[in-house]
Amino acid sequence: MKRNFRLTLCYDGTRYRGWQKQGNTDNTIQARLELLLSRVLGQAVELAGSGRTDAGVHAWRQVCSFRAETEKSCGELLSEIRKYLPEDIGALSLEEAEPRFHARLSCREKTYVYRIWNSAQPDVFGRRYRTAWPGALDEAAMRRAAALLIGEHDFSAFCTARGKKKSAVRTIKNIELRRDGEELRLVFSGDGFLYNMVRILTGTLLEVGSGRRSAESVGEALVSLNRAQAGFTAPPQGLFLWEVRYDGEN
Amino acid sequence: MKRNFRLTLCYDGTRYRGWQKQGNTDNTIQARLELLLSRVLGQAVELAGSGRTDAGVHAWRQVCSFRAETEKSCGELLSEIRKYLPEDIGALSLEEAEPRFHARLSCREKTYVYRIWNSAQPDVFGRRYRTAWPGALDEAAMRRAAALLIGEHDFSAFCTARGKKKSAVRTIKNIELRRDGEELRLVFSGDGFLYNMVRILTGTLLEVGSGRRSAESVGEALVSLNRAQAGFTAPPQGLFLWEVRYDGEN
Repeated sequence: MKRNFRLTLCYDGTRYRGWQKQGNTDNTIQARLELLLSRVLGQAVELAGSGRTDAGVHAWRQVCSFRAETEKSCGELLSEIRKYLPEDIGALSLEEAEPRFHARLSCREKTYVYRIWNSAQPDVFGRRYRTAWPGALDEAAMRRAAALLIGEHDFSAFCTARGKKKSAVRTIKNIELRRDGEELRLVFSGDGFLYNMVRILTGTLLEVGSGRRSAESVGEALVSLNRAQAGFTAPPQGLFLWEVRYDGEN
Repeated sequence: MKRNFRLTLCYDGTRYRGWQKQGNTDNTIQARLELLLSRVLGQAVELAGSGRTDAGVHAWRQVCSFRAETEKSCGELLSEIRKYLPEDIGALSLEEAEPRFHARLSCREKTYVYRIWNSAQPDVFGRRYRTAWPGALDEAAMRRAAALLIGEHDFSAFCTARGKKKSAVRTIKNIELRRDGEELRLVFSGDGFLYNMVRILTGTLLEVGSGRRSAESVGEALVSLNRAQAGFTAPPQGLFLWEVRYDGEN
């Protein structure tokens, strides 16, 4: 009988074409992991992630699930997985999950963090994990704009269309701005995010912060359902999938 | 008349063969910078660093000095330098210095920091700037050993011979262990450090911390003046030249 596993990963997305596989041996995190798990377990393994991350986006915590028939303990499996992982993907934990657990379908809430290096000084040691924004940012205006985005809305204006017309209704539970010296973090929590959504939200808030648009215009963009009314797509390297939460967890 | 400049840099040493140039166009920080400064200033420029860093070692702050004839302001020069620097070298400040200032000869004290990721968990985001040490470390024993190294000593046992027989007498003013969660930092301050010295001190303290040798054996290694009595050379990627201090400065 197949057992159900829950695997928590972190990864530096710099050299990958995102999470979602496009073939069986391509340079995506999912394809790499499925290949590795299939070898370690001696059987074809399908890996479900809590959601996709775009090319170049990182994961501080990404939760995945897979089913496999094996006698090995989680500790043994984790050691074997770690042995074969490249240094830019880390396996943080592996545990047996309830039979009905599914990393994507069971997911209740996600948090993304966008890290901005808000300084004219070079960011030599953080350059792979932050986006540099040397200009001044009006954080009060950014907070006013962010408040207009919280709640259940159709976020069509804040995503890149991917062909199929699916519902773009999502609930953003919170958007927080946290400053720590020269780093400004935008923390987005919600039940799910559309393709490029966090990066477009970030780009739009950066336009507000730098005075290129008003906080109110963000509310107007939201109701327009028109991508052209929102701001630019902030680059991927500042973005982290930070946390994934499931029912019955804090 | 030539003006005297003081340039403060930071760099990610990963892809360089260290600070000290070995030719005019080689892959060292000094050669790269001299080429860049010579182009920006339209004259041959010789750059003095506060000291060498080994291949793969980083600088949080490295101070350099150079002389050049120019009408340009420091602000103009700094912008031009930044325009041509690769993303793994940062120019933090440029100012005019007293005529007698020399980055190496005027240097009074340096601080190096060795960063250790003391955990069995993967260190995906810090892997370029920390050395992983998964085993437990007895910090009390490491502190006892460190205390034996403080002061003026002949550190022949703690350096890699470079051919010429020069004095190996140096003064270590302080060695501090600072723990922040899973990161342990070894902070070394002194009037100067020999080739590989901080890495050998670190390797020796790690051997003490993991119980492979006693704290007392470090004092014995010191008086032996014999490299074979000290510990291994810790890898370069955990090491940072952290700060350089000059007379009349805090």
